[in-house]
Amino acid sequence: MSGAGGIVLDDARAGRIGFDEAILCEQKTVPQIAEIASRSRDTVGRRLFTRLSAEKFAALPPDLCGAMIYDAQSRTAVLGATAPGAGPPRVAIVSAGSSDANVVAEAQATLAYFGQSTQKIEDVGVAGIWRLLERVDEIASMPVVIAVAGMDAALPTVLAGLVPSFVIGVPTSTGYGAARGGETALSAMLASCGPGLTVVNIDNGYGAACAAMRFLRM
Amino acid sequence: MSGAGGIVLDDARAGRIGFDEAILCEQKTVPQIAEIASRSRDTVGRRLFTRLSAEKFAALPPDLCGAMIYDAQSRTAVLGATAPGAGPPRVAIVSAGSSDANVVAEAQATLAYFGQSTQKIEDVGVAGIWRLLERVDEIASMPVVIAVAGMDAALPTVLAGLVPSFVIGVPTSTGYGAARGGETALSAMLASCGPGLTVVNIDNGYGAACAAMRFLRM
Amino acid sequence: MSGAGGIVLDDARAGRIGFDEAILCEQKTVPQIAEIASRSRDTVGRRLFTRLSAEKFAALPPDLCGAMIYDAQSRTAVLGATAPGAGPPRVAIVSAGSSDANVVAEAQATLAYFGQSTQKIEDVGVAGIWRLLERVDEIASMPVVIAVAGMDAALPTVLAGLVPSFVIGVPTSTGYGAARGGETALSAMLASCGPGLTVVNIDNGYGAACAAMRFLRM
Amino acid sequence: MSGAGGIVLDDARAGRIGFDEAILCEQKTVPQIAEIASRSRDTVGRRLFTRLSAEKFAALPPDLCGAMIYDAQSRTAVLGATAPGAGPPRVAIVSAGSSDANVVAEAQATLAYFGQSTQKIEDVGVAGIWRLLERVDEIASMPVVIAVAGMDAALPTVLAGLVPSFVIGVPTSTGYGAARGGETALSAMLASCGPGLTVVNIDNGYGAACAAMRFLRM
Amino acid sequence: MSGAGGIVLDDARAGRIGFDEAILCEQKTVPQIAEIASRSRDTVGRRLFTRLSAEKFAALPPDLCGAMIYDAQSRTAVLGATAPGAGPPRVAIVSAGSSDANVVAEAQATLAYFGQSTQKIEDVGVAGIWRLLERVDEIASMPVVIAVAGMDAALPTVLAGLVPSFVIGVPTSTGYGAARGGETALSAMLASCGPGLTVVNIDNGYGAACAAMRFLRM
Amino acid sequence: MSGAGGIVLDDARAGRIGFDEAILCEQKTVPQIAEIASRSRDTVGRRLFTRLSAEKFAALPPDLCGAMIYDAQSRTAVLGATAPGAGPPRVAIVSAGSSDANVVAEAQATLAYFGQSTQKIEDVGVAGIWRLLERVDEIASMPVVIAVAGMDAALPTVLAGLVPSFVIGVPTSTGYGAARGGETALSAMLASCGPGLTVVNIDNGYGAACAAMRFLRM
Amino acid sequence: MSGAGGIVLDDARAGRIGFDEAILCEQKTVPQIAEIASRSRDTVGRRLFTRLSAEKFAALPPDLCGAMIYDAQSRTAVLGATAPGAGPPRVAIVSAGSSDANVVAEAQATLAYFGQSTQKIEDVGVAGIWRLLERVDEIASMPVVIAVAGMDAALPTVLAGLVPSFVIGVPTSTGYGAARGGETALSAMLASCGPGLTVVNIDNGYGAACAAMRFLRM
Amino acid sequence: MSGAGGIVLDDARAGRIGFDEAILCEQKTVPQIAEIASRSRDTVGRRLFTRLSAEKFAALPPDLCGAMIYDAQSRTAVLGATAPGAGPPRVAIVSAGSSDANVVAEAQATLAYFGQSTQKIEDVGVAGIWRLLERVDEIASMPVVIAVAGMDAALPTVLAGLVPSFVIGVPTSTGYGAARGGETALSAMLASCGPGLTVVNIDNGYGAACAAMRFLRM
Ligand SMILES: Nc1ncnc2c1ncn2[C@@H]1O[C@H](COP(=O)(O)O)[C@@H](O)[C@H]1O
Ligand SMILES: Nc1ncnc2c1ncn2[C@@H]1O[C@H](COP(=O)(O)O)[C@@H](O)[C@H]1O
Ligand SMILES: Nc1ncnc2c1ncn2[C@@H]1O[C@H](COP(=O)(O)O)[C@@H](O)[C@H]1O
Ligand SMILES: Nc1ncnc2c1ncn2[C@@H]1O[C@H](COP(=O)(O)O)[C@@H](O)[C@H]1O
Ligand SMILES: [Mg+2]
Ligand SMILES: [Mg+2]
Ligand SMILES: [Mg+2]
Ligand SMILES: [Mg+2]
Ligand SMILES: [Mg+2]
Ligand SMILES: [Mg+2]
Ligand SMILES: [Mg+2]
Ligand SMILES: [Mg+2]
Repeated sequence: MSGAGGIVLDDARAGRIGFDEAILCEQKTVPQIAEIASRSRDTVGRRLFTRLSAEKFAALPPDLCGAMIYDAQSRTAVLGATAPGAGPPRVAIVSAGSSDANVVAEAQATLAYFGQSTQKIEDVGVAGIWRLLERVDEIASMPVVIAVAGMDAALPTVLAGLVPSFVIGVPTSTGYGAARGGETALSAMLASCGPGLTVVNIDNGYGAACAAMRFLRM
Repeated sequence: MSGAGGIVLDDARAGRIGFDEAILCEQKTVPQIAEIASRSRDTVGRRLFTRLSAEKFAALPPDLCGAMIYDAQSRTAVLGATAPGAGPPRVAIVSAGSSDANVVAEAQATLAYFGQSTQKIEDVGVAGIWRLLERVDEIASMPVVIAVAGMDAALPTVLAGLVPSFVIGVPTSTGYGAARGGETALSAMLASCGPGLTVVNIDNGYGAACAAMRFLRM
Repeated sequence: MSGAGGIVLDDARAGRIGFDEAILCEQKTVPQIAEIASRSRDTVGRRLFTRLSAEKFAALPPDLCGAMIYDAQSRTAVLGATAPGAGPPRVAIVSAGSSDANVVAEAQATLAYFGQSTQKIEDVGVAGIWRLLERVDEIASMPVVIAVAGMDAALPTVLAGLVPSFVIGVPTSTGYGAARGGETALSAMLASCGPGLTVVNIDNGYGAACAAMRFLRM
Repeated sequence: MSGAGGIVLDDARAGRIGFDEAILCEQKTVPQIAEIASRSRDTVGRRLFTRLSAEKFAALPPDLCGAMIYDAQSRTAVLGATAPGAGPPRVAIVSAGSSDANVVAEAQATLAYFGQSTQKIEDVGVAGIWRLLERVDEIASMPVVIAVAGMDAALPTVLAGLVPSFVIGVPTSTGYGAARGGETALSAMLASCGPGLTVVNIDNGYGAACAAMRFLRM
Repeated sequence: MSGAGGIVLDDARAGRIGFDEAILCEQKTVPQIAEIASRSRDTVGRRLFTRLSAEKFAALPPDLCGAMIYDAQSRTAVLGATAPGAGPPRVAIVSAGSSDANVVAEAQATLAYFGQSTQKIEDVGVAGIWRLLERVDEIASMPVVIAVAGMDAALPTVLAGLVPSFVIGVPTSTGYGAARGGETALSAMLASCGPGLTVVNIDNGYGAACAAMRFLRM
Repeated sequence: MSGAGGIVLDDARAGRIGFDEAILCEQKTVPQIAEIASRSRDTVGRRLFTRLSAEKFAALPPDLCGAMIYDAQSRTAVLGATAPGAGPPRVAIVSAGSSDANVVAEAQATLAYFGQSTQKIEDVGVAGIWRLLERVDEIASMPVVIAVAGMDAALPTVLAGLVPSFVIGVPTSTGYGAARGGETALSAMLASCGPGLTVVNIDNGYGAACAAMRFLRM
Repeated sequence: MSGAGGIVLDDARAGRIGFDEAILCEQKTVPQIAEIASRSRDTVGRRLFTRLSAEKFAALPPDLCGAMIYDAQSRTAVLGATAPGAGPPRVAIVSAGSSDANVVAEAQATLAYFGQSTQKIEDVGVAGIWRLLERVDEIASMPVVIAVAGMDAALPTVLAGLVPSFVIGVPTSTGYGAARGGETALSAMLASCGPGLTVVNIDNGYGAACAAMRFLRM
Repeated sequence: MSGAGGIVLDDARAGRIGFDEAILCEQKTVPQIAEIASRSRDTVGRRLFTRLSAEKFAALPPDLCGAMIYDAQSRTAVLGATAPGAGPPRVAIVSAGSSDANVVAEAQATLAYFGQSTQKIEDVGVAGIWRLLERVDEIASMPVVIAVAGMDAALPTVLAGLVPSFVIGVPTSTGYGAARGGETALSAMLASCGPGLTVVNIDNGYGAACAAMRFLRM
């Protein structure tokens, strides 16, 4: 396909680390995405696409489009079947505000693609801390907690002090001014006095889900 | 006095805004500080000196030294009498960790100089949130709360959601790495989802105390 | 409502801190905002929406739109009645330039929603300082002053040296180049030699108004 | 003890999250550290102290000093017995260069305090990638890998692509100029294309060890 | 031509340094670009235009448009003939991901304009390091290697440790959040422990190609 | 006029400092600009408007539009007559590249409004230093030199070492990547080893022209 | 002299631009400074040394030391005679606080070396604006004003709005926290709404004096 | 050796890339450096140590000290013989000021260790551009030019426009304030309009020398 660029898929990845390569679509062209989808359909049969805009998805060749399921909130598309997870969820996705919903959705969609169900507990930020305290036992019962928060991102610190679970913080770009597009949330989580809190990139719901996968598979 | 530099004290300040000029000693020379102390003794009779190192204090002429009381923890010196505040404290100074004690002390010393007693509630950071929850009623009973925190500075956000008091956040330089000398605490407080939280400069216990004075005098 | 995300309103907030939760609309979807408006209409009966674009407001279901009053300059919408404040204003909103008018409007709209009238004194920046000096007595008669300024934000420092009022600085994103979207105004206010000046986030007229509410209620 | 500041230990922490509070000594005074050591000896009987300089340790009262074991490389001190871990190590600590040895030591000392043995694999940075490739199988056999690297911190990315283990990256302040005291290593790990890599603060061997503890206890 | 601005072409450049001035079109107006193209056609007969959008190219006068060949991926246009390079390529352009394809294309187009053929080896980033290891001998056989990578940019470090070639790193703006538009890739390359790695500006495929030209002509 | 915001023109400015207030239109609304233009027409009779987009200018009431002359390149509009400067120019505006033409134009338009003619010497950046050396005598004959440069901004340093004139550097936002929107040019001019070089804000042709006016009037 | 490094003095500078090269001693070794002093004594007979610590001055060979006059406050040394300026001063050096005294001294010493007397007006910062207003007429009578200020640096903006003089702002590193070692003062001056304010580097009293020299010589 | 940390020397490096691993001593302990020196003496017989302070060198065991030659200016030590380069130098090291002498020395010492002689041309910065113009032919005759400059780093841009040689820019930490410890010099070189200029880390004379080695060996 012309304009598809030089593409080498890391198809040995699942064998090495336990889950396959997803495609970060943000800076890829439509022909590149189409080429990857087409190759994946013909070989391994499935693939997750992240940060895919509705416009780019719509511009893919109809047969590829038809073979994929697009989710606007998480901006993901899935090629091939998603194996539904058996058993109760082992990952909680907790968010500070409803403005963080897109990032929550990306984490959830990624885990679903990998066959894991999740428990969402949204909009429980610490400015009204009773919302979180009401759900602490439920959260503490999960081995992995993905804590999603923007602005000052106080939620993951409070959580890490309350539950024994493995906590993965995802700073979001929610907020303005001194929130600096998520930089403040990121720095706050890193400088947190909550012991053993780990962090991934700003808005990186995908990365948090991959970390959860590493945890669950061990 | 030779080497004392050109000094103009703003002696009309108390008349305009209700409290007199304090002297920020950090970048002043010993002769400059001595000149200010000497002039103050001979005119208004009292003065607060902030960010004064023990070394500089010790290097002042003995008669000036003798007329001042130095406090090592807050790095302040007071020339002249401190009028003890009558009645119960109306300002709580709440801190996240015991590493913030110097800044707590500067706020307390400044308010004491201005005749106000304070209630200290230290080391109640949100990584162990029960410590704060135990003291909420006490804090909520104070008109003004100075909330001192470093690292990710989650405490003031939680506080601002729990009490109706006027909350003044003081970010501190406690922490390392992504704490960036207090910048992260500062940004977190500014980007906070705690409604109506106000902020002063990093480690600026003096400024928080001055703001409290404006509040109390209104 | 589909796409509305997980929403938990902090309806106990007014009981705890004296004023109710406002909705920051910037990163919320239209279905989320509609869900919040609808729930609020059916329960507490009123709500303030901030940083709401005209486009999003127009996209709300007609019945909700009809129950709200939208103000384009402040980008706020009010659901339910606004109780007009009795008595003369106790808050002055002072701005450096007419480019700061949107932020002034957000502070004013928020205080109006909370039942407080305000006195606006605009475009009195210190490059032509006579404009400010003419109004000093008027400003000094107010218990609370919200000082709004962008660029180098020299106005709040000058004000804090002239009046005994409680001064809340709001840096704005006015300016270009080294103004860095409000970062310079923010830093200047924090590093100010004006004693007891407190600061909120860049362009955060809402936050300054909430701080004023805390003050007025004490 | 005079000068000890207001101290509230979070002694319920172990009950909530599975391991007890360690004391970050960097910005604490000697009297504060002594007070904490003394109280800990009299109550829970053990405590880990981090970022404790040799000077401060030596300045503690002799009886406390005698009750603690100080390790200069990790700058930690342990009060009370360290329960040696039974069984083979489940955590590998992998470092890019021998300049990262202090941070490796802090992670190791923390895990030892919590009763976990560790496997160190040092100085295997990717500028000479054969050093890492030789050890891949050994590393892949561990459930948790703490990957310590400064400068451009390419090691954790390469590792995350090679092993299925849970990888916790610790950026270090090794390097100069554009290494910016660890900021570049930190950003590189966060922006890494290694899927599911999690990150803690710069030089935070303690935090990585706490995260490992959360993992091992689940 | 009206609106063309004051233009002085550095036509002595090729005589001094061995290759002629290219035109950076990003902040130039269409009349300025047209003026330069027109003058170049009438004097030296050829010219390379970089960072030229398709919109601006289409807005040039038809006769100029017709005398130029535009390449959308590299955003370059060439006026006049491109002398095809004789012999096998002496420059490898290696990239970490297919998202870096535009920058690869700019380097390739520039070298082609200067008469040099190149060998492209794309999408061999270190998260799946076998892709790179498979091609090491091929890369090591080239005197010059242009290493293009975004995000954490670990590829150039690994390469610089594997091949004796002269390695020129080009950080790209690929990625999001902590990738900071290429700043992290840039800093990582500069702080790299890969000995003798040189670096050019973010996304500067043109600059890397010019450096390669300096190398090849020596 | 509705929506015009609170406007106070500093009409005493010319009396104090020698030239009148210009209007920075970037963050002002069309009604605000119209109100200012209308008031100015009715009082002092003239006014300079800067950073005015063609769209906003076109949206002004026709009678105001008709009373103003708009210049698209400098994005300025002039209300009222411009007094042409008598005698030869005393200000040179020297630029590094033709991409800096907008900023050159703003400086020129401002000086023209103030009655000063200027000598433009464009596109003489130091990558082809003969272009500058050819014009040194001409430049040295001017009392004031406005030196406009983006990217690494080496031109003003070289100039300041070659001519005795008063040199005012204007960094521009020309460039990409490490040029950081003009920040690098700004920092380079400030850190310059060219003795006595003064600097104004990024892209601030207006400010440089005002400084030149202060010079010429003394 | 061994260890003196390769030194080439720009002895033609005075002929080109009107004043001779000064020696920035901060990163030079004692042998380098000695070599420069020795050569200068033997050729042009005079030289200004800036940012010279008392320790380095004392370490120079005694004969050179004896031929120079060292001033501790400005950290300058002068070799050879300083021609006292005839007539009244034409440059005012105005400072915001007495903490800025070192920078004031450097500007004054530099102008003295160049034969210019100066008028110092110190400690007139805008937190007590009456101090400045009292001196406005005196300042306005000077052709050149060097305005020295740290922290939020509001003084130069106010000054530029009050006097017609040529104003050169010198940001200082006075302050802490958000003052960021002078960065905030620098940015505030650059983003200033004071028209025609020019700026030099942080703490660069020398550069401001050189700019004043360019002015006075024109 | 106790305290020597885990050390793995990359002894295959010379075989892969043509020159052996040097030891960056800045963050290594004396026992680590001693261990490396001792092992190197016993195996390959030679080694270069960089960023080694005089204090650490003096603290090495006497026999190791005696086997090494320490150079204070470059802060390097060489173990084993340095093979003197035959033939005329092919690398010029050009610096802007004598304050850059340490970095010049590091590049020179590294090349000497690798058997290459160099030609130094120091203190020819562009504030007095005649110094550079006098030496252009000499510089242009060298295949490789290492251009060392701090502050605004205009020299490498001017050089890259004048000579056809391969130019490697080394930004230095010379300067203060807006020089920001070399960040401005670094950014200026990266954003340079000098075509084909490559850059290494701040103060990285070692890295520039390694790049030169790659060049010379091809
Ligand atoms: N080296 C360390 N790095 C980061 N956090 C630490 C470290 N050591 C202890 N802590 C935690 O930091 C917090 C400090 O609280 P405080 O001592 O009250 O200021 C506690 O929750 C500790 O568990
Ligand atoms: N002055 C220096 N600047 C940058 N890198 C250096 C320097 N000296 C040695 N190196 C390299 O830095 C790397 C450091 O690795 P390590 O010593 O294991 O931390 C090695 O690859 C060295 O070749
Ligand atoms: N610790 C402090 N932090 C911030 N400002 C202070 C402090 N102490 C005193 N100040 C104020 O800082 C200003 C310094 O002015 P000057 O001493 O003239 O530089 C005065 O207005 C003081 O009231
Ligand atoms: N205090 C100072 N601040 C800034 N530049 C200075 C200062 N003192 C001298 N200079 C200039 O800095 C340049 C330094 O060049 P060099 O000494 O060769 O590194 C010379 O052009 C001096 O005129
Ligand atoms: Mg919410
Ligand atoms: Mg504590
Ligand atoms: Mg105005
Ligand atoms: Mg090593
Ligand atoms: Mg790929
Ligand atoms: Mg040009
Ligand atoms: Mg003062
Ligand atoms: Mg020099």
